[in-house]
Formats: sequence, structure tokens, C-alpha cells
Amino acid sequence: MNSTLAFLAAARQCEIHDLEHLARSCDLVQAVSELVHRLQGERGASNLFLASGGEVFVSQREACVALSAQAEAALRSWLAQVEGGQDAPIVAVPGGARLFTRIAVALHALDGLAELRAEVAARRCKAADATLRFNRMVAALLALVFEAADVAADPAVSRLLVALFNLMQGKEHAGQERAAGAAAFAAGAAAASTAAAGGQDLLHLIDAQEACLERFEAFCPTELLGTWAQAKAAMPMGELERMRRRLLAAAQGAMLDPAQAQAWFACCSQRLELIRDTEAALAQGLRAACLQRIAALQADPDDPQSLLRALAAQPEPVSPSGVLPTEDGVEALGPRLRRSIVDALHAQAQRLQAMNDELAAVRTALDERKLIERAKGELMRHQGLAEDEAYRLLRRTAMNQGRRLVDVAQAVLAMSDLLPPRS
Amino acid sequence: MNSTLAFLAAARQCEIHDLEHLARSCDLVQAVSELVHRLQGERGASNLFLASGGEVFVSQREACVALSAQAEAALRSWLAQVEGGQDAPIVAVPGGARLFTRIAVALHALDGLAELRAEVAARRCKAADATLRFNRMVAALLALVFEAADVAADPAVSRLLVALFNLMQGKEHAGQERAAGAAAFAAGAAAASTAAAGGQDLLHLIDAQEACLERFEAFCPTELLGTWAQAKAAMPMGELERMRRRLLAAAQGAMLDPAQAQAWFACCSQRLELIRDTEAALAQGLRAACLQRIAALQADPDDPQSLLRALAAQPEPVSPSGVLPTEDGVEALGPRLRRSIVDALHAQAQRLQAMNDELAAVRTALDERKLIERAKGELMRHQGLAEDEAYRLLRRTAMNQGRRLVDVAQAVLAMSDLLPPRS
Repeated sequence: MNSTLAFLAAARQCEIHDLEHLARSCDLVQAVSELVHRLQGERGASNLFLASGGEVFVSQREACVALSAQAEAALRSWLAQVEGGQDAPIVAVPGGARLFTRIAVALHALDGLAELRAEVAARRCKAADATLRFNRMVAALLALVFEAADVAADPAVSRLLVALFNLMQGKEHAGQERAAGAAAFAAGAAAASTAAAGGQDLLHLIDAQEACLERFEAFCPTELLGTWAQAKAAMPMGELERMRRRLLAAAQGAMLDPAQAQAWFACCSQRLELIRDTEAALAQGLRAACLQRIAALQADPDDPQSLLRALAAQPEPVSPSGVLPTEDGVEALGPRLRRSIVDALHAQAQRLQAMNDELAAVRTALDERKLIERAKGELMRHQGLAEDEAYRLLRRTAMNQGRRLVDVAQAVLAMSDLLPPRS
Repeated sequence: MNSTLAFLAAARQCEIHDLEHLARSCDLVQAVSELVHRLQGERGASNLFLASGGEVFVSQREACVALSAQAEAALRSWLAQVEGGQDAPIVAVPGGARLFTRIAVALHALDGLAELRAEVAARRCKAADATLRFNRMVAALLALVFEAADVAADPAVSRLLVALFNLMQGKEHAGQERAAGAAAFAAGAAAASTAAAGGQDLLHLIDAQEACLERFEAFCPTELLGTWAQAKAAMPMGELERMRRRLLAAAQGAMLDPAQAQAWFACCSQRLELIRDTEAALAQGLRAACLQRIAALQADPDDPQSLLRALAAQPEPVSPSGVLPTEDGVEALGPRLRRSIVDALHAQAQRLQAMNDELAAVRTALDERKLIERAKGELMRHQGLAEDEAYRLLRRTAMNQGRRLVDVAQAVLAMSDLLPPRS
């Protein structure tokens, strides 16, 4: 009975240990969400600056650069503290291999930021190219948040992370829409073919952000639904839809007024800031949710540690022979304590089972993205495409066939055994 | 670049750390598989002993008890070494909460062994009751192996554990068949209703073991398929099928010859020993598989540690201003080293992605059991049944409706929202 309880206590300790690590991952996710927001702002400003030939948004871009440099420094200093020097022993973190690899990939992407900024400032790169490079950095950071949601072992916190990931992903689609629209307005009338592709892109970005926001709402904690409803009510949707219509008309050959670029940017930015408010509230709640889960475990009357203490306070069990202590001391226990231990055992086993089921249900919400990632991987392997190209091929196929991205991904995976390997 | 590499190295270290823990879990699984085998032997011998009214299998039962006591002591001493005293800090183990809870449940079940043996020796319990109590202990031990397979983060080792779990589960069905048949033969002619139920049970046990062995074969490592084919060829299937036919005929009212009980037992035991040989080979290979995976990671030419060393050997990077070191030292790196780091980053990200996909595919093989466990939980909650009762209800429903257990489980889960909670 003593060993039973020792392992029950060990299990509880593992759970608390995992939650403490999860709290740290949540801090990281919060820093990442701040940096993503700032990079989105910098991307939009850089876009307007480049598309206007360096005429507008000069100081605004500089202000955005300062804000995102600040967010990047905050993230890097948080990470340096975790890293703790090259020779520091890395503590075992649940899902550590996956999370740390995503951090490495994100840091590597951010290493390109200084060069990109220099090129933008000197107007040595095109707006579309700068956008693509910012997109990649944001994608690497979002992948980190996705991984944190996927490796989280607590369903309550995992739900919050899934909600946050979807909100961030939806906001990123909205941010890309802002960048694409700003570039189109600022350029006046783009070439017809570019405008047509832009129109398709715009429709895709609108669809994708709506799908993400729906998933966010499905996982949003009740206490934030009010905040989110207020944020949505404050969004300038009438104006946004009017300007979206103009952009789509441009894809059919209509002209755009470059003077409207800033109005479009301001309108999209207002919406992004409102999404950001909910996002920040959600991100800030993550650590509290972890601490709350830890406190609940510690306040549990069935806590194995307190049962172990009660067991230790019992008189020393004596074997039937009267010489050696019995192996488990069951007989010597009071019936009430014995009952408590059995109850604690069953409660813990059932609780973990229920948590595991719930976790599986939450993670299903992440499967769509996993399918798309896997399909991208298949296309990279079989067709020798780069990651961006593979994604664009999937997206173009989906748009051309009027199917959802995830359905195209599934079709690619189903076919992948039949595809010849790249020679 | 330095931070990128540091996190890449940390990821690698986490992977190795997880594999080292997995190697320890595999040792545990090996000890569990030995104990399960011995308990199955003791259950069979106890059954014959009780069903014959204490006339046969007296010394054989004692020999079985000694063997299973030895296997239990080995498992407990292995666990005591992990446990390391009540105040020892429990190291973070991947999936620790779930694994340790299963260990606690299994230890609690084993605590009932001494009492059960005393009752059997004094013939104070019925054969069917003793069987049920042994079954529960074996089930608790099998659940531990299942959990070890489910929390393993390495697909290669996870495949081996899934193979082993299915082989053990198949062998357990075969062991239950041996016990049920032995009891029926030893009792001569059972009451018609009991015999009819026994016949249905027998059919279910035969089906269930075949399904498990098929899954085992699907996951069995290639190098063991030959051993397994030889084991199957050596099984006395002709004799077994002849006696199975007699048992089924008894369910229709035919008489059984009590003198055949020992022949049945010997025939089933021969088959179980042959299954056991493959099981032992598989269990022994687990640790080697973990060590092999660790060695492969350490021999990787893209090992981030050696890249970090190469980076440290570079001259101190100097910023363009010539005063401060650059943030990442990228510019100062030789192009070959820079290339290696980027390659290592992509290789690691893709490898983990591929491992994760493969792991998901392997774990699907465990989903069937999870569905059945969840359905059992629903029945326990809604109908207030004990665990055994819930399982028997599922099994009886499956037999009566001629459906697979997993399909009935799925139907229960689909209906569970409609079921009223137990008042």
C-alpha cells in the first residue's frame, strides 16, 4: 500500500512539474504573440513605404521597427534566460525536442530581420518580396505557438492555447490581407494578371481568417466571449467591406485610388488592434490558468502526499510472524485511511483518463493544420519544391478547384504513395 | 546563430533524455511481461486445482506460485529502485503522471495476491472467482504496458511496444481460454446454461486472440517474423482445435471427460509457452532498440553539439562598427559552417515532423482499446456498474448482436450524451 501511494504521489508530482513547465511555455507564447503583432505592423508599414516609392509612411515605419525590435529583444532575453548558457543542463521539458526545435527555427528566421530592414530602408527590395520574408518569420513564430498547444498535456490550458493559436492565425490572415490590399491601393492599378491573382488571394485570405476566427470562438473561454463580442461590434466592418469590394473590382480591371491606401491601412489596422486586445487578454490569462490548475491539484483532499503523511503517522505495521514488517502494511491500516487510498487511486486513474480523452478532442482541432503540413512535406519530397512553393501549389489548387485547403491536403496525402519519388 | 544552435542542441538533448527514460520504461515492461506470464500459469494451475476439488495439480500449483512470487519480487525491487524513497525527487518522465498512476493501480491489484493464494490453497473460493481475480491483476499489468506504448515518443520503439502489447493481450485471451476450458473439462458436465455461456465466452476469446495476434504481426519487427513463424508451426493446433470442438459441443449438451482436463491444459500451455518465447524475444529487444536510437542520434554528423564546438572554435565575431560583437555572428562564420547549421536545422525540423506523423499512425493501433475503455467508463458513470460488469455488458452485447466489441463501444459513446446520468 505504501508503494502504491508512493507512485500515486510520484504521478501527482509529474503532473505538477508538467504544469510548471507549461506555465513557462505560456510565458514564451505571450512574448511570441507580442512580437508577431509588432512584425505584422512593421510588415504593413514597410509595404506602404515600398509600394509608394518611399513617399509615405517613413516615420511610421521607423516607429514600427522600434516596436518590433523591442518585442524581439524581449523574446530573445526571455529565451537567453531559459537557455542559460551553452553548458547548462537542459531540464527535461514535456515535448521539449519539438518545442526547442521550433524555437531554433524561429530564431533562425528572425536572424534575417536586420538584413531585411536594411533593404527596405534603402528600397532595395520589392514590396511583395518584403511581405513574403515577413510572412515567413511570422509563420515560424506561429508554428512555435502551434507546437506549444500540441504538446500541452493539460486539456484546460491546451484549449486556451488552441483558442490563442487560431486567433493569432486568423489575425495573421487579416494582416496579410492588410498588406496585400495596401500594396494594391498604393500601386494604383496593378497589371490585370497580378490584380486577378491578388483578387483570388484576397478571397482566400478572407475565407481563411473567418475559418480561424470560428475555431477561436469554439475554444474561447466563456469569460472572454464578452470582450470578443465588444471587439467585434467595434470593428469598422462596413468600411472594410466597401474597400474589399473595390479591391475585388480592381481584379476585374477597375482602377484604384492610391490616396485610399492609407484609409485601407487605417481601417484594417483598427480591426487588427481590436483582435489584438482579445489576443492579449487570452495570452495574459495563460499563466494564471496553469497556476490555477496547480493550485487545484494541491488543494485536492485526495492528495497522495497528505495520505502518505497519514500513513507514516500510523503505528509501524507488524507481520503475522511478529518479526518482520509486512510488505505493504495493509492489515495495519485503519479502514478509513485504507478507503481513502483506494478512493484516491480510482479518482486519479479516472481523472487522467478523462483528461486524456478531453485532450484528444482538443487536439483534433489542430489536425487540420497538421494535414496541411504533411501534404506540404510530401510535395517537397516528391516534387522537389521549396516550402513556400509547396504551400502556394496547395492553395492555388484549392482555389482553382473551389475546394478547402484541407481537402486538397488530404487528397495529396492519399495519392502520395502513388507519386514517384523525386529522381 | 549561436542561440539557434543552442536550442537545436537542447532539442537533441531532450530527445536523448526521453529515450533514456523510455529505455527504463522498457525494462519495466519486460519485468511486467515476465510477471504476467507467471500469473497466467498460476491462474491455470489454481483453476485445475480448484475445479478438481483439490485432487490434481497440487505440486504444480505450488511450483507456479513460487515462480510468480519470484517474478513479483523482481518487479517490486525494480520499482523500489525507481521510487528511491518517499522524499527522493521524482525526475520528470515523459508521460510520467499516466505511467506512475498505472504502476500504482497495478501494485494495488497485486496487493491482493497473498489473500487470493491463501483462499485458493484452503479451497475457500470457487474456480470462477479465482480466475476473475487473477484476470483483474493481469488486466492492471497489461494496462501498464498499454500506457508505456501510448506515451512513448519514439515511433520505432513505440511500434515494438504496440507489437508487444498486442502479443501479450492475445496471449492473455489464450490464457483465459485455457482457464475456462480447464474448468469446464475438470468439472465434467457443467449445467447447460453455464456451458452455453462458456461456449460463447470461448468463441469470443478465440476471436479476440486472433485479432490481437493479427495486430501483433502487423507491428512485429521483420527480424522476429521468422521466430514467430517457427513458433506458430510448432503449435499443436490440430489437437487444440479438436478439444475446442468438444468444449463447444458441451455447450450444446454433450458430456466432457474430466480426464481430458490435463491434456487440454498441457496443449494450451504448450501454445502459450511458444507465444511466450516470441514475447520474451520482443521484450528483450526493447532496451536494445532504445540504445540503438540514442547511438544513431549521437553519431549524427549534423549533431548540434559538434556544430556548437565548431562555432566556438571560430574567431570572435566583430560587428561592422568594430566595437561590439554582432548579435549572432552570422557574417563571421565560414560559409561551410553556416550551411551546416542551416542544414541541421531543416533536417531536425523535418525529422521530428516525420517522427510525429509516424507516431500518430502507430498510436492509431491503440485507439480501439481506448474506445473500449471510454465506453466502459461511460457505462460505469451512467449505469453505476463496476468495471468488470461494464466490460461484460459490452462483451455480451457484442456477442448477442454479432458485432465487434469496438463497434459496440463506439455506439455506446455515440449514445452517451443521450443517456440519463445515474441518479
